[in-house]
Amino acid sequence: MSKNLNISILMDFYGQLLTDKQYDAMDLYYNQDLSLAEIAEDSGISRQGVHDAIKRGEKQLEELEEKLGLAARFAAVSRQVERIKTLVEEIEEENTSPKLQDKIAELKRLSDEFENVI
Amino acid sequence: MSKNLNISILMDFYGQLLTDKQYDAMDLYYNQDLSLAEIAEDSGISRQGVHDAIKRGEKQLEELEEKLGLAARFAAVSRQVERIKTLVEEIEEENTSPKLQDKIAELKRLSDEFENVI
Repeated sequence: MSKNLNISILMDFYGQLLTDKQYDAMDLYYNQDLSLAEIAEDSGISRQGVHDAIKRGEKQLEELEEKLGLAARFAAVSRQVERIKTLVEEIEEENTSPKLQDKIAELKRLSDEFENVI
Repeated sequence: MSKNLNISILMDFYGQLLTDKQYDAMDLYYNQDLSLAEIAEDSGISRQGVHDAIKRGEKQLEELEEKLGLAARFAAVSRQVERIKTLVEEIEEENTSPKLQDKIAELKRLSDEFENVI
């Protein structure tokens, strides 16, 4: 079974719609990097059972993203924020007007704060 | 039945998880502003049936937002973008440096573009 790194991102968006069993197995596998055998041992489910729960969960997450596309929307916002941050830094470096300095600093603060919001 | 205006927003986020019947009835009611009686007549379902489909849909959308909170996350992004846009406009107005002018214009373009992304 090859790990799909996007799954971690999709779990962040839609994980609460999975069953507890699916979520726990996927969290151990994708976020805590445990092996299928380790998860099976910890949870008292067979290795095959863990494998199936993860596969079903992956499919569900992918179907949710296909329908709703919210992870893609957030990713587009993130890219836009990165472009804004770069530009604000350049403007801050090149600015020589004391009058603008405070507003540019505030703009930098706001664009940095996006990380807490997204 | 009183209209909950947040429902339109939640439909934009999670509407694709509703059944077609629910989605269509809610779309006519919330987005096209038809009455329950009009929707009943158009769809050949009883007024009570339309009412129930809408109520079930509303409950489902609210449960999805309670679990996932993605509409709230996007709303927070929107508020942050509004603050950034205001500040960029102020900076643009107050700037006197020709050197910064292009970068500030580009920043304005990027912050305006958020509307297409969000």
